[in-house]
Amino acid sequence: MTRLALVDALRSGDIRALARAIRIVEDHGASAVALLQAAFPHAGRATVIGVTGPPGAGKSSLIDRLVSSYRSDDRRVGVVAIDPSSAFSGGAILGDRVRMQRHGTDAGVFIRSMATRGHLGGLARATGDAIDLVDAAGFDPIVVETVGVGQDEVEVVRTADVVSVVLVPGMGDEIQVLKAGVLEIADLFVINKADHAGADRLEADLRSMLDLAEPGPLPEIVRTVAVRDEGTDGLRAAIEAFLATTEAGRRAARRRERAEARLLAVLGEGLLDRVVARALPDGAFAAVVDRIAERTIDPYTAAERVLARVEVR
Amino acid sequence: MTRLALVDALRSGDIRALARAIRIVEDHGASAVALLQAAFPHAGRATVIGVTGPPGAGKSSLIDRLVSSYRSDDRRVGVVAIDPSSAFSGGAILGDRVRMQRHGTDAGVFIRSMATRGHLGGLARATGDAIDLVDAAGFDPIVVETVGVGQDEVEVVRTADVVSVVLVPGMGDEIQVLKAGVLEIADLFVINKADHAGADRLEADLRSMLDLAEPGPLPEIVRTVAVRDEGTDGLRAAIEAFLATTEAGRRAARRRERAEARLLAVLGEGLLDRVVARALPDGAFAAVVDRIAERTIDPYTAAERVLARVEVR
Repeated sequence: MTRLALVDALRSGDIRALARAIRIVEDHGASAVALLQAAFPHAGRATVIGVTGPPGAGKSSLIDRLVSSYRSDDRRVGVVAIDPSSAFSGGAILGDRVRMQRHGTDAGVFIRSMATRGHLGGLARATGDAIDLVDAAGFDPIVVETVGVGQDEVEVVRTADVVSVVLVPGMGDEIQVLKAGVLEIADLFVINKADHAGADRLEADLRSMLDLAEPGPLPEIVRTVAVRDEGTDGLRAAIEAFLATTEAGRRAARRRERAEARLLAVLGEGLLDRVVARALPDGAFAAVVDRIAERTIDPYTAAERVLARVEVR
Repeated sequence: MTRLALVDALRSGDIRALARAIRIVEDHGASAVALLQAAFPHAGRATVIGVTGPPGAGKSSLIDRLVSSYRSDDRRVGVVAIDPSSAFSGGAILGDRVRMQRHGTDAGVFIRSMATRGHLGGLARATGDAIDLVDAAGFDPIVVETVGVGQDEVEVVRTADVVSVVLVPGMGDEIQVLKAGVLEIADLFVINKADHAGADRLEADLRSMLDLAEPGPLPEIVRTVAVRDEGTDGLRAAIEAFLATTEAGRRAARRRERAEARLLAVLGEGLLDRVVARALPDGAFAAVVDRIAERTIDPYTAAERVLARVEVR
């Protein structure tokens, strides 16, 4: 199938074509670029819902409930999971790339987990690409699940149209995790496993922390018990209220940030591949690495020598 | 103070000079490069001990005990923490950049936490730089603490001379976290909070998972209760046994990987800065980002146009 035919097929709702397209994009060969170029004009319509939080917060169960909620309104829902501890992504690592859970036989749900390995920035690039393809295939909303502790993972989720941060009572570290750049990106908080002891304490801690933070409207705090499907409606209402009340300017700014992050990721990866191949062909790269390991040259001097040979016409 | 004088001062054991040097490197200005070039020949001596694991595993308490153990042998110990949920790094986010805990008045302990924000790859670059400076200042060993769930964070720790993965019973997700690329990088496992229920079960799960993994000697599994200082001697013995039995070849390979990761991080950041500034000066970069956000150009086509203008002499 040509790239164009593949894009046509995935746009017409062919799930296998979509899965195949994402695989091509993850492998990142030359045909991946042509594929993304063809799909790009058809993407950008879906609402992207970011769900992040520490491992064990129950993000997958919550997403499962959210998917059912959207399905009951006949919305086709995409899920892109890049949390290595996720029930979805756990499968990715073991080679079971598409783990469908109870939505497995539902053609209106597309779940894809991304491996978290590869080169610096590669995860952000591949995830942006996958979201575009799922978007071009007409799924809306698209839920992106990341673990809110890794730098790359936070970068990926922060430019979603709405960012939900999921916490659970009694983990001890939840507030510390918040300090690490997650507080600023939250549009709303979810206290999951809210039937556990400590939910009130967690909410109180969260409120006092939010009060100390920047001025402006405080993010809503929603309580859920995902395993019993409690609070799902409240969460969905909070997501939709946030999206409805966000001014167009703020939403455009978020999408602009997403565009910038993608451009930098694509450009950074492309530059490194191209320049290293040309400036340090064959054994030259390995020889420089050896010299750095032996401490006879430092990485900055080595990089400067390469950079001095780079010209921009 | 000139860069050379600063390097001389930190090499003579001036802690404030070391802290200042790391700050310069984190800000990543032109003088940072000169500083690192001057410090580089004096680094590469320390043993780097990587400690990783999920948030809440008690990594900071464990490191605290390990530091005391090395101090009792009069070793000067460095700690570089890039776990946002760490007791050390928690402080970084709040602006309390050097949190010394009970080693605060001990000039033989240097603790530095790195912020986890910044551009893609920036964390790996800055952490490598900080380790070099602490190393040049004569601290040995240097403990690097990261949270074992983020891609960048795993990349940073995997090239340590010895990688310890810390787990705790009863978190539910510990085995999932292992699947995510952490299993392969572990030279030894620590079951912390080993007095909690489920320690035997966790060890059994771990052993059966390790048996299924690649052949070769199984990583040692050590039990600790860091808050009561139980098992610290066993952990230190396991670390030292690993280092003593690792063949020179394997250790050199690890250092080579570290050198390669640093070169790519430095080169990637330098290329992106330089090429974007030259190819898309002033408002041109913003204009391209706007066009991507409006979906009138895709990031791959935009990147290709920039790449086509890059020449390597």
